[in-house]
Amino acid sequence: MINALGYAVQSASSALEPFAFSRRPPGPKDVHIEILYCGICHTDLHQCRNDWGRSTYPMVPGHEIVGRVKSVGAEVTKLKVGDFAGIGCMVDSCRRCAACQADLEQYCENGTVWTYNSKIPGTNENTFGGYSDQIVVEERFVVNVASTLDLKAAAPLLCAGITTYSPLRHWKIGKGQKVGVIGLGGLGHMGIKFAKAMQAHVVMITTSPDKAKDAMRLGADEVLISRDSAAMARHAKSFHFLLNTIPNGHDLNPYAGLLKLDGTMVLVGALTALTPPLLGGSIIHGRRSIAGSAIGGMAETQEMFDFCAKHNIVSDVEVIAIQHVNQAFERLLKNDVRYRFVIDMATLRPKT
Amino acid sequence: MINALGYAVQSASSALEPFAFSRRPPGPKDVHIEILYCGICHTDLHQCRNDWGRSTYPMVPGHEIVGRVKSVGAEVTKLKVGDFAGIGCMVDSCRRCAACQADLEQYCENGTVWTYNSKIPGTNENTFGGYSDQIVVEERFVVNVASTLDLKAAAPLLCAGITTYSPLRHWKIGKGQKVGVIGLGGLGHMGIKFAKAMQAHVVMITTSPDKAKDAMRLGADEVLISRDSAAMARHAKSFHFLLNTIPNGHDLNPYAGLLKLDGTMVLVGALTALTPPLLGGSIIHGRRSIAGSAIGGMAETQEMFDFCAKHNIVSDVEVIAIQHVNQAFERLLKNDVRYRFVIDMATLRPKT
Repeated sequence: MINALGYAVQSASSALEPFAFSRRPPGPKDVHIEILYCGICHTDLHQCRNDWGRSTYPMVPGHEIVGRVKSVGAEVTKLKVGDFAGIGCMVDSCRRCAACQADLEQYCENGTVWTYNSKIPGTNENTFGGYSDQIVVEERFVVNVASTLDLKAAAPLLCAGITTYSPLRHWKIGKGQKVGVIGLGGLGHMGIKFAKAMQAHVVMITTSPDKAKDAMRLGADEVLISRDSAAMARHAKSFHFLLNTIPNGHDLNPYAGLLKLDGTMVLVGALTALTPPLLGGSIIHGRRSIAGSAIGGMAETQEMFDFCAKHNIVSDVEVIAIQHVNQAFERLLKNDVRYRFVIDMATLRPKT
Repeated sequence: MINALGYAVQSASSALEPFAFSRRPPGPKDVHIEILYCGICHTDLHQCRNDWGRSTYPMVPGHEIVGRVKSVGAEVTKLKVGDFAGIGCMVDSCRRCAACQADLEQYCENGTVWTYNSKIPGTNENTFGGYSDQIVVEERFVVNVASTLDLKAAAPLLCAGITTYSPLRHWKIGKGQKVGVIGLGGLGHMGIKFAKAMQAHVVMITTSPDKAKDAMRLGADEVLISRDSAAMARHAKSFHFLLNTIPNGHDLNPYAGLLKLDGTMVLVGALTALTPPLLGGSIIHGRRSIAGSAIGGMAETQEMFDFCAKHNIVSDVEVIAIQHVNQAFERLLKNDVRYRFVIDMATLRPKT
């Protein structure tokens, strides 16, 4: 739970009882999950600090949730008791709009219900997320997690994973394509792994030369240091696709210049103002596109988990106890994690 | 020709003799054209005023050229003496790169040779454009103009036309799509005509309520005044495609908000800084794209002329004498033309 200063505090289960949605008695389509691990997304930090001006406290962050099914409603068909399950950024949507009908619940025209800090339709209550011991979610918003995957390292797939997997799929990345992944953090390191597994030629694009070795270990074929103007010039007009994972405003123009004719750069991190401003000429020359993409739909999230099981892809994580969540937030602010903190929720339970 | 102050002056043919490229003796693949009409593009104004810092004087502007074939080289097959012909923004390219091989000479990797103010490869000379009485151009860069078209009104098709036609084709605009054309000028009025002929539902988006009636006459189904925030809200998330013809920097965010899921806005006018800056959230929400597009290839320019002949599409023009070109420039600066000035080149020839 988040206190008035906006920092996460260890939450006792009993404190959550008034907030019914995430802990409701499971209905016929619901899955009741004991949370085992929850990743710490950069978004959690933004929400805790009210960076976007729409935080409501108290808050229970967390939308990279992996757990074990405790019980299922009578109409649930995909999951059974004891299965491993994942819950990502969404727990509900209207189901009726064109986006929902196209399995793109994240773009629901009537408003996706996010896993935390999101108004529950028809109530004055908010949803509560995964920094907790249990959660109840309707089956449509739960994915099967293969038992062969390292569970703690699978948690970040629910946000960092699907956020990078979805655009690579949507823009049909594959063999013969030169793909750049911009920014090596929680999202970027997953982008490298996925683009490589999809058989693209992968170039890690980073400001930090000290990340080069790690990028190669993660699967990059090359590393391009974006502050090296000679290197940038050598790679000019050569990329089919750029996955831009930088989490805040930055200059798009030098990256746009890397795209070849009809190339596309997709933003998945930066929601705020992109300064200095984009020059029209940066995209008019070469018929380039700059697009955005938000996580992925539930069907695609399941597809990604199946892809990860097949290719044995998980995140690189550092597991922490819930008691150390504020230190983890401080380190995240300094980009000091390779590449995702994951909370072991066993540390939340009373020792028996 | 342009003098040192950057304004067009009436050019005597003899003054051009030292500049050989556009007036060379026709080679076996060349077409020698007597220029009948030349449109005045906003680009001419930018180039004359050196707005982009790359103007070289003396300059002969003009890249919306329609004329009559005077002679053809032995290997020319598409055109014969007496045919009507068009020349647009390009007169040469490398022919070997991937872009040229894909009939996209405007994105030539080795440098398109533009119709004027462009270095002629292997020389220190510049090309000279259509504010003149004649021009010699290789067949690949000349299109057939149907004799059924109003020639003076066909001249702007060579730039304003193809610049709007090409993106509408590339992004597969057709029946069942809601298309917005932003900005009603030389480009915008062609965008309306083409989008309508392609059977889209066309909305003219403009800051000027006084342009509404004219937009409907040109073929728009609706007019949206972009300064009317209630109207903008009513149209939010409803457009499949936006053709943005605004010729200078502006705020993209309100327009991005008009796009529906997976919608695309294509910039064809603004080469400079787009301020206030784009917000990442404007495109991440709804997986929107912002792209650019530059004129069109020569094959597509011919396709457009055939489309125009079939649908009887030309520009709305105001014909002027070459002696009034500077007044036309002044009026263009104030957006005072509906919608394209075209110079009648007969006014350049000595009266007989």
